[in-house]
This record gives sequence, structure tokens and C-alpha cells, in this order.
Amino acid sequence: MVRAAVMREPNVPLEIQDFPEPDLQPGAILLETLFSEVCGTDVHLHHGQLAGVPYPIIPGHINVGRIQRTGGAIRDVEGDVLMPGDVVTFMDVHETCNACWFCLVAKATTRCPHRKVYGITYSARDGLLGGWSEAIYLKPGVKVVKLPASIPPERFIGGGCGLPTAVHATQQAAIQLGDSVVVQGSGPVGLSAAILAQLSGACQVIVVGAPQLRLDMALEMGADAVINIEEHSSEDRTVLIKEMTGGRGADITIEASGNPQAIAEGMRMTRDNGRYVVVGQYTDAGEVKINPHWDINRKQLDIRGTWGIDFGHFYRAVKVMAKHGARYPWEKLISQSYSLDQVNQALADVASLKVIKAVIKP
Amino acid sequence: MVRAAVMREPNVPLEIQDFPEPDLQPGAILLETLFSEVCGTDVHLHHGQLAGVPYPIIPGHINVGRIQRTGGAIRDVEGDVLMPGDVVTFMDVHETCNACWFCLVAKATTRCPHRKVYGITYSARDGLLGGWSEAIYLKPGVKVVKLPASIPPERFIGGGCGLPTAVHATQQAAIQLGDSVVVQGSGPVGLSAAILAQLSGACQVIVVGAPQLRLDMALEMGADAVINIEEHSSEDRTVLIKEMTGGRGADITIEASGNPQAIAEGMRMTRDNGRYVVVGQYTDAGEVKINPHWDINRKQLDIRGTWGIDFGHFYRAVKVMAKHGARYPWEKLISQSYSLDQVNQALADVASLKVIKAVIKP
Amino acid sequence: MVRAAVMREPNVPLEIQDFPEPDLQPGAILLETLFSEVCGTDVHLHHGQLAGVPYPIIPGHINVGRIQRTGGAIRDVEGDVLMPGDVVTFMDVHETCNACWFCLVAKATTRCPHRKVYGITYSARDGLLGGWSEAIYLKPGVKVVKLPASIPPERFIGGGCGLPTAVHATQQAAIQLGDSVVVQGSGPVGLSAAILAQLSGACQVIVVGAPQLRLDMALEMGADAVINIEEHSSEDRTVLIKEMTGGRGADITIEASGNPQAIAEGMRMTRDNGRYVVVGQYTDAGEVKINPHWDINRKQLDIRGTWGIDFGHFYRAVKVMAKHGARYPWEKLISQSYSLDQVNQALADVASLKVIKAVIKP
Amino acid sequence: MVRAAVMREPNVPLEIQDFPEPDLQPGAILLETLFSEVCGTDVHLHHGQLAGVPYPIIPGHINVGRIQRTGGAIRDVEGDVLMPGDVVTFMDVHETCNACWFCLVAKATTRCPHRKVYGITYSARDGLLGGWSEAIYLKPGVKVVKLPASIPPERFIGGGCGLPTAVHATQQAAIQLGDSVVVQGSGPVGLSAAILAQLSGACQVIVVGAPQLRLDMALEMGADAVINIEEHSSEDRTVLIKEMTGGRGADITIEASGNPQAIAEGMRMTRDNGRYVVVGQYTDAGEVKINPHWDINRKQLDIRGTWGIDFGHFYRAVKVMAKHGARYPWEKLISQSYSLDQVNQALADVASLKVIKAVIKP
Repeated sequence: MVRAAVMREPNVPLEIQDFPEPDLQPGAILLETLFSEVCGTDVHLHHGQLAGVPYPIIPGHINVGRIQRTGGAIRDVEGDVLMPGDVVTFMDVHETCNACWFCLVAKATTRCPHRKVYGITYSARDGLLGGWSEAIYLKPGVKVVKLPASIPPERFIGGGCGLPTAVHATQQAAIQLGDSVVVQGSGPVGLSAAILAQLSGACQVIVVGAPQLRLDMALEMGADAVINIEEHSSEDRTVLIKEMTGGRGADITIEASGNPQAIAEGMRMTRDNGRYVVVGQYTDAGEVKINPHWDINRKQLDIRGTWGIDFGHFYRAVKVMAKHGARYPWEKLISQSYSLDQVNQALADVASLKVIKAVIKP
Repeated sequence: MVRAAVMREPNVPLEIQDFPEPDLQPGAILLETLFSEVCGTDVHLHHGQLAGVPYPIIPGHINVGRIQRTGGAIRDVEGDVLMPGDVVTFMDVHETCNACWFCLVAKATTRCPHRKVYGITYSARDGLLGGWSEAIYLKPGVKVVKLPASIPPERFIGGGCGLPTAVHATQQAAIQLGDSVVVQGSGPVGLSAAILAQLSGACQVIVVGAPQLRLDMALEMGADAVINIEEHSSEDRTVLIKEMTGGRGADITIEASGNPQAIAEGMRMTRDNGRYVVVGQYTDAGEVKINPHWDINRKQLDIRGTWGIDFGHFYRAVKVMAKHGARYPWEKLISQSYSLDQVNQALADVASLKVIKAVIKP
Repeated sequence: MVRAAVMREPNVPLEIQDFPEPDLQPGAILLETLFSEVCGTDVHLHHGQLAGVPYPIIPGHINVGRIQRTGGAIRDVEGDVLMPGDVVTFMDVHETCNACWFCLVAKATTRCPHRKVYGITYSARDGLLGGWSEAIYLKPGVKVVKLPASIPPERFIGGGCGLPTAVHATQQAAIQLGDSVVVQGSGPVGLSAAILAQLSGACQVIVVGAPQLRLDMALEMGADAVINIEEHSSEDRTVLIKEMTGGRGADITIEASGNPQAIAEGMRMTRDNGRYVVVGQYTDAGEVKINPHWDINRKQLDIRGTWGIDFGHFYRAVKVMAKHGARYPWEKLISQSYSLDQVNQALADVASLKVIKAVIKP
Repeated sequence: MVRAAVMREPNVPLEIQDFPEPDLQPGAILLETLFSEVCGTDVHLHHGQLAGVPYPIIPGHINVGRIQRTGGAIRDVEGDVLMPGDVVTFMDVHETCNACWFCLVAKATTRCPHRKVYGITYSARDGLLGGWSEAIYLKPGVKVVKLPASIPPERFIGGGCGLPTAVHATQQAAIQLGDSVVVQGSGPVGLSAAILAQLSGACQVIVVGAPQLRLDMALEMGADAVINIEEHSSEDRTVLIKEMTGGRGADITIEASGNPQAIAEGMRMTRDNGRYVVVGQYTDAGEVKINPHWDINRKQLDIRGTWGIDFGHFYRAVKVMAKHGARYPWEKLISQSYSLDQVNQALADVASLKVIKAVIKP
């Protein structure tokens, strides 16, 4: 039997259930879970803030595991055969259809209506399709990436879903050598964005966030400066950013805060004709007032909404970590590791921002 | 002596004053004014809605004239010598410094703090530096473009500042062959944007605006459909656009309305991962509430503020009109022509939307 | 039984063979062929110039047909159900895998090693997988597009594979409003590129090619000027282009000639910092000498190779034709229509450039 | 009096001449030269390989100096006043006209026909307009950048003109996080490109060049691997690159070699649908044969010629060095420093590749 944590419905504690060891279809893989992430989305799931979730579910969308069995010879994107014992991760989003208007004409696979997500859009009745479990069933076609030896599993899960999301945001940011970059938000996405901005040519990276624990981590991860939102008003923050950027504002601002009010502030922190990437508004947290004359038109601002990731972002995240993991040890973002039996505590600690990142080690 | 209409201060009628015939510095040109435009900005100037205007001024930023005299041999951007008798237009914005951070590093000349604008940033005490006058003094360095024989002066002024502004907006829109484009606003910028979208590969152009007079002009200028905002609520308009675009919304929306509320509506009219160009918020007309989760982030929307024009837009506007003026006779946008003595009436008619475009023929 | 023309091996005449009416798998479609194209690639196939072709084959990659039967309810990319009687076309390239490095990381589906092409990569032993046949078997997953009522089947086949190929090339060209564009080559790709350049904002389109029949067609399709390569040397042609473009050369040049020597010439016809799109070198026709200092580096030239098409180009081709087919009646490119029994004559006429485009009407 | 080294004509030794201390026009600056660079272009100048050079000249286009006097209050691009004693560098290319078609319409200032270059396009008769001199006269309008305290003058001159040239090339390369980058050439441009590729997100950088001294420097500066062209044939090199890049070739190749044959090799080292930046073909060194089918069209290769620099590249070079100079100490590229009296030896050592970089310390 396989033990898994099940979120039966919103706002009630998860419980551990036993599931039978699954048979494998051709093309499927069974993973022994090494680590699964607890992220803000899991808190939203637990609070019932996402529409269309087929409770009961096994949460856990970003995971690292060891291959136990495979349904025949399966190759990864590089053409290499996947073998039992390989330590791998996989792309939680899958079944983008390659047949709809968004996949084929818009080439915006993150908006494909058929996409499925491990740990979010599958019911526990459908099988071991989330990572808070001793084992995970990878359906045929799920995209698997082998972890290179230079990435310990803990480091990969320390990056978690924040890292590939930040890869997408950083691509949208189109940073040029020498740019100044402000990151709004110091959670996992913001911290990874602050690292990736450095790796993409930014010569000044400023993180605006809270609490101090996270800002200290930003500094440890190479940010040039931080601004604690618990100590400075929105107006002050904008003034501070201008002072640090020659009076003009940041060349590029990346929003990773989740707070609608951050949008107006971020527009004002960005220089005329700069670029503003919005990646943190993952759930509907309400409205914000902006002044389109000053904030968009006169400023000639370039604003780029950024939703989810595609496989390219996921693949590049692994490449970046393999190269730069020693310099930016993402495992330091893990404040605490929890067993399956502690998942409710893990959720509570993430919700209260007590931890930067929580991981499940089943 | 030269007669010119002078806006002495906001909200008082303009009066005609006599100015001496100016001497020419080397590199300067004296133009006999053939036509000058009355645009929405002139109404804003008359209402005192722009900051830092050095009243008294001679309004009129977009103009066509005939060269009377030149201060020596002056060449245009093509290297051709400008001769007395040539019918020309000139770029109202000039003295972008080519020395500041915005000119040289950001390469955003429209945000150069040293830029000057005929008809707006010059006092009448500085000379004949606006077009509501029998003659215009072109300072050395002002960029002049000869009108090709295929462009009658009336047609050029019919395009007015709306056409090059729409060239800038259409460039930002990056339309692909086959795209559907919504234009919000049916004033001179919106109508030219509707034409230029067709010329840039759009296969469906829908204009959302009012009054009917302007929408009829949009249809005459090739728009596939129009939506009258006096007849349909904002919600209805969005539903209509979705119905016309396969349920998805427009690939690209160009805002040219001047109304802050149009921003939220425009975001919702645009398809997921589409593009939204904001060019119409020329003055501060207040705030708008948006929902950053639905309107930007989840939609993965690309938003591009667009301010003013640079010489390239102006030059391309002339090229486009020379090629396509017979198919899109911009002079039809001119509802009425006014003499210098009728400038107050012209301003009133533009303010009340009685006319699509008013021009001064001194 | 179904009659089809079979190319048994290179350089021997095709012969008509009878095939049984196929059964349909779920998701498959049987088309009654209305028109199939004969294009330069078919001549290359007949001359044995493409590697890895599994002769015997049924040629014919671009086709229009009427649905006879479907294997269950099948939807097109818009989500509409396809019904018997519908007049449709389909994307010849298919089975791009959505699983390899090129599909997923490079996002260059035209370089997917698993892609298959109707009329080229299938043996006649595999079934009715080419258009020179009374019927075509569409395998599950082949992307089908309904022809709108505004596109007569003859017009679509008049565009043929040249039109979507030109859509791809024109996208790569990134034409701006007012640009001058030179097209090298006056075959089906070149003629469609000359049309699409006009539809994308070019204000001057010059076609360089031969014979005169094709250049006359270019002028009929709106080109501003043509240069006959049978009458002007390469040096003369470059001088002529410079004279027509203010002494600078074309803003953009699109190569659609198939002749390696055209590459050096095209680089020299393009202005400094212009763009050169290479789409016509479909087979290996030998080498060309270039001078990288003058032709690339000093000129700061942007060169974009363009291979094949993806579904987006195909879909947009249909959109463009639906909108602009009356203005640019592509059926005029069809010099002659041939029956199945005349396929050898059709190939000979295409090879000798006697016709602009030949089509098979089975 | 001011001592300066004068190149009287090609192929004769330079000699030291005395010049009077110049008076300053308003807006001009007199610099005490701290360091001037000897670069490959100076060798070309000495061999008479550049057209239109007004010998006698004072060579030295990239320089660092200390302000001695200024002709009035002069501000830099940030708006700060420049003061005697400030250690500065300046943009050698200047007088781009901001009035011609290339400046205004193409926005390609590197192709402005009016641009002037210190140390190259000025005669020694015009004054102290080159850096191999105890003092340099900065004409009004020359763009000056203060060296931040974190950049010792030696480090800046170690970067020399290779660094901003590599900034331009790296911008053109549009590197994405995780890309593999090959640099062809291990001279000053190539070494800086190898550094900047790392700083722009590349996760694998391979330098192909010679001699071993330079390749060792590439490794010291963080390259992942090097290939010595003295030890491997062109075919071998391409095979090696494929082996190191998953069989596909580099995502991006940057040519900085100066050898025309490198162009064909570079195209073949780059993966399908990759990008090839050509920056090293600074003088006409002859032709190269390419196969446009395989090397451009089928490969769907994106090729970007890159000429010179604009002020933005220069400015960003200083930003990058201020931030990353400790990690990449460019002064290590300086093999030897020479006095004014040793300029002929310096030229000989650069010509024979004995040194990576030679600098003049007057």
C-alpha cells in the first residue's frame, strides 16, 4: 500500500489514506517520492479559493522522486531512456493538447483549456496524482527531466515551482546588461526572480517585501538592497526606489507579491518606457485603482502578464540550477521539512509566513 | 506683417494679433501656412489642462505650408535641398537632445525632457512657433518632410497628428497577418488606427465609439464592424466583441478613447495572451479600477503604453499616405475648414464633437 | 476503388493505380479530392532530389476536398464539428510530436524530427496519403480547416503551399508601415510574398524574377515594379534597386528564388541594418560566395532563414484569403488544370516554367 | 607642450611629436591620458587596411583619463557636472548627426554617415584627437562617463573597446536562461563576449580560438570549455561542439574571429533555429563559401550582423564592469603596458598575437 495525504474538502484537516500500488499503463512511470513542495497555491486550495478543484485531492504539484518502475522504454526530451533508480522531476502541467486554437495559433500553451495539473486538477479517486504521497503515478506523456548529479533533490525542491515561474517572468522581463530590477515580493517566486535577474544581466536588484527573514535571504542570495514594506509606506518605497535608480525608477519591475495594490505601486516604481512584469496575482484578491494617463500612457510603460509555465521554462530552470546551484543554494529557502503526518502543520506554517518554504518528505 | 491667432490664457477667447515678418537665422525656414490642425489637445490647452504651457501661445502643432524663404541651403532627411515653393510639413516635436539618458540609453526620445513642441511649449513672445498663423518660423534643426505630389495638402492635414500617433500605436500593436483588431475610440487617432490596422495585416477591424457620424466614417474607411457606445453598455460591448471573435476576444485592442474606464473594458475585450495598446489617455482624466488577476496576470496580457511620436512615425505616416491616400482619403475626416478669424468657433466645434476634424486655413 | 497517380521511383513516368476504399479509424476523415497542387517540390521529388522519400508515393501535399465520411465526431481548431459535405483543406505537415526538444524547448516545430508530410514522406503502400488521387485519407490528428464560403476551392489551391510559406516568410520579415520590400523570385512563393508584403504595411514592393509572364502577374497583383533577370545582370539589378530606394537598398528583402547566387545579390540589395529573409533555398542547389565583412558585419544585416510552416501560418493563410481574395484573386496564378491522367504533363510544364502554377483536378 | 605618438602614414614607424597645449572651446574638455588601448584596429590602421583615414593621425580610440580643464560647466548623461580631477572615459564614436535617415528612420546610429571616431577619422593636424598622447581634447558634445570608484582605470582599459563591442553582440544574441553559447575567437572581443554570455544567462560557454594563452584566459574567465583551432580541424571542431551540446549544436554562436572561414563553420556549429551573431569581420579579409540550403534556410538560422557600438552599449559596459569587475578582473587581459616611446613595439606585439591586450600609459 501507498500512504498519501488527502485534502478531502476545503477548510478541513487533511488526512492520511492508504492507496493500492498501481499497475502501470505503457508509457507510465511510478515514482518514489523524495520531496514534494508546499506552496502558496496549496494554501489557496485548502481555503477553497480556486475554482473547479475536484476534491478530494492529493496536493503536491512540484516533486522530486526516484523511478521505481516504468511501463516499457520511455525516453526524456533529450532522447535518453529513463531507468529505475533515476532521480527525476516532472512537469506538473501536462496534457496541453497541441490541437486547440491557443496551442496552435496563439502558441500560448499556458492558456490551453485542456491542460491538467498534478496535485490540483485531479481527484484522489483518479489515483496517485499528487506529491504528498509516498509514490506518484506519472501518466503517459508526462514530461520527465532527470536531475543532473550536481543538483541534490533538496536543492531542486528548494527552488520548487517558484523557480520555473520566475524563469518565465524573467524571460518576459527581457533584461539587458546593466539594467536595474525591482522585485516586489520576497516569497519563493520573488526570491528566485531576484536570483534570475542577476543571472540575466541586471546590475542592480532591489527586493521589496517582508518579513525581514525573507529579505535577509534576498540579501544572502545577492540582492543589492531590500526595502521592508512593514517599515516603509507605499509612497516612501517609491521615493526610495527612485533615489536608488538615478531618480528615474527601475528599468524593470517584476511583481511577485499577490497583492493587487502592488500593481499601482509597481507601475510608479518603474521608469518611463520601462517594463513591468506581473506574475504574482495568481488568485483573485480584488481590484486596484490605477491612473492610465500617468501609469501607462504618458509613462509609455510595457506591461506583461505572465501565467504559469510551459515545459521550456521548467527545462531551463533545471539547467540554471545545475550551473549556478553552488552560488545560489536554493535549499536554503527551505525553512522546514515535514513528514506526511505533519502536512496540516506545514500548511499552517506557510499560511502564516512563518517559513519561506515548506517541503514534504514522505 | 503676419496675422496669427493667439491663445492669451486658458478659457478666454483667442484673438488675432499682428507679428512682424521674422528674419531668418542660418538653417531656419519661413513657411506660408496652408493648413493647420485643430485637435483635442488644442481644446485641452484652451481649458488649461496641460501643465507648464507658456501662455500666450500660437496654437497649431501639425501643419502644412509652402516654403517662402530659407536661411541658406537646408537639406531634408533624404539629403534633398529644400527650395522656396516646396510644399512641406514638419515634425512639431523637436530639440530632442540626443544627449540625455532617455535619448541615449533608453532610446526613448518621446520621453526626452528637452523636447519642444510647436504650438504647445512656445510662447507667442518667442515668435511664429505655432500654425494658427499666416506664417510659421521653423527653427534650425526642425525636421521637414516634403509632401509628395500624390498628397494634396488637405489630405495631409486630414490625417493630422492622429495619423503619426496611430503609426506609433500600430507599431506597438505588432499585428500579424490574419489578426482581429478592436479600436476603442472613433476620433482622429482611432480612425487612423482602424485604417493602419487594415494596412498592417489585420483581417478584422472593429471600431467601438460614438457618435454615429464617426462610426459611419469608420465603416467608410474599411472597418468591418462598429459598436456604438451610446447604444450598448460596457458589458454588452464586451459580449459583442467576443461573439465576433470566435468567443475569445480580439487578438489586439488599441485604446484611443481618452476615457479611463475604457482601460478595464479594453483588457476584457482582448483575448488571453493578446496585446493591448494604450495611446488615448493623453491627459489625466482620472482613475480606473482593474482586477490584476483576471485582467493582466491570468490573461497573460501584453500592455503597451504609447506616448507621442518620434520622427520615424512622422516619416512613415507620409509614406503610407502617399501610397494609400486614394484608397483611404483622409481629407474626408475634415468636417469643416475655418479661417483664422473663426478659430474660437473651430475650438468650440471640436470640443462638442460636432466635427470629426477641424482645420484652420489662414 | 479509388484512382491515384503513383510516382513509383524518380525519373520514370507516374502511373495511375487503383486503391481500395479505405476503412476509417476513429478520428480519421475521408476526403473527396477537389484540387491538388503541383509544386516545385513535386519536380524535385520526381528528380530524386529529396533524401529519404519512400517511393512509391502518391504526390500532392496541398489539397482541397469535400468530406465524404468521418470516423466519429471530429472538431477543428475552432471547436466546430466537421461534417460530410464540408469543403476543407488540411495541414500537410503533421505528427509534430509535442514531446521532443525542438517542439518543447526550442519551440521550433518546423524542425521536429518526427513530422510527417502528406505527399512526400508516406509510401503509397501506407494508403491514400497524397492528393493526386480521387480521395485522401486524413489520419487522426491531421489539422483540418474549413474553407469559408468566400473562398472558392480554386482560389485556395491557387494560393497553394506558396501562400502559407509566404505567410511564414512575411512574419519573419517584420515589415513596418512604409517599408520598401524586394522579393527575389516570381514563382508561387514570391508572388504570394509580394502580395503579403503589401498587406503587411510595405509601401513599395519590387519583384525581381522571370519570365515576363510571372512578372506581369506580379504587377497585376499590385507590385510597384518588377525587374526581369533575363534582361538585367546581377550588378544592374542591385543598382536599379538602389535607385528605386533612395540610394540605400530595400528595407527588407525576401528571397524566394531557389538560386544560391541570389543570396549574395539579395544581401547587396538590402540597406544597411535591413532584414533579409531566406525562404527559397528549399533544396541543395550548391554554394555561394559571400563577403562577411561587407555583406553581413559592416552592413549590420539581420538574416532569417525560414523553413516550412506550422499550423499558425496555414490558419492565417486562410484568414488572409478570406478577407483579401477578391482584391488578390490567387486563382489567376493557375495557368492550367490537369486531370489525373495528365500528371506527367503537369510535372513537365512546371519543370519548364511554362506555367506559374499547375493544379490537378482528379 | 604635449607629447603624442603620430602615425604619419601606413607602414612606417610612428614618431613622437610635440603639440601645443590647446585652448578649450565652450563645452570642450582636456583630459590627462591615464591609459589608451592598442587594439587590432590600430594594426589595421598601420597596415593601411582602412579606407579614408586622414594620415597623419594620433591613434588610440578607447581611453581613460583625468579631467584637467573644462570649457564651462559640462554635464554627463546622468546630469552630473564634470569636474577637474574626475577620472573618466568617453565614447570614441561621436557626431552621429541625429538628422539623417539612418539616425532618425532606421534608428541605426552605427550606420550614420556623419559619425566621427577618435583615433581613426581625425588628422593629427586637427588636434589632440587620439589617445596615444599625454592629453586628449574632447570636443563639445563628446559623451563622457565617469568611472565609478569600483573601477580602477587599468581594469577599464583592460576591457577596452572589446567590452562595449561585446555588449552590442551579446544584446543581439538575445540569450535565454540556460542557453549554450559558442564564441569563435579568443581576442579581446571574444573574451568579453564569453564573460557577458555568462552574465546574460548562458549555462554553457565554449570558446573556440588560439593561441593557448588566450584560451587559458577564457577558462580563467569562466568559460566551461575551450577548443584550440591549432589542434583541431574545422570539421573536428564542429563535431566537438555537437558532442558538447546534446548533438544539436549551440543555441547561440558569437563570431569574434576576423576570419571569413569562421562564418561557414559558425553556421554549422549552431543548432537548427539557433542564432548566429557576426561581430568579428571588422575588415575585408575576403570571401567565404556557404551553402544557403543547409546553412541558412533548412536550418532556419537567425543571423545578426553587428557593427560598432552606440552610447548605450558603452554606458552598459561601464555598469557591468562596476558590478562584476571583481569576479571578472578585465585588467588580467593586459599582457603588457607600454610607454609612448614604445608604441611601435606595442603594435608589433599585438600584430603577432604575442599579447592578449597591449595598453599605452603615456
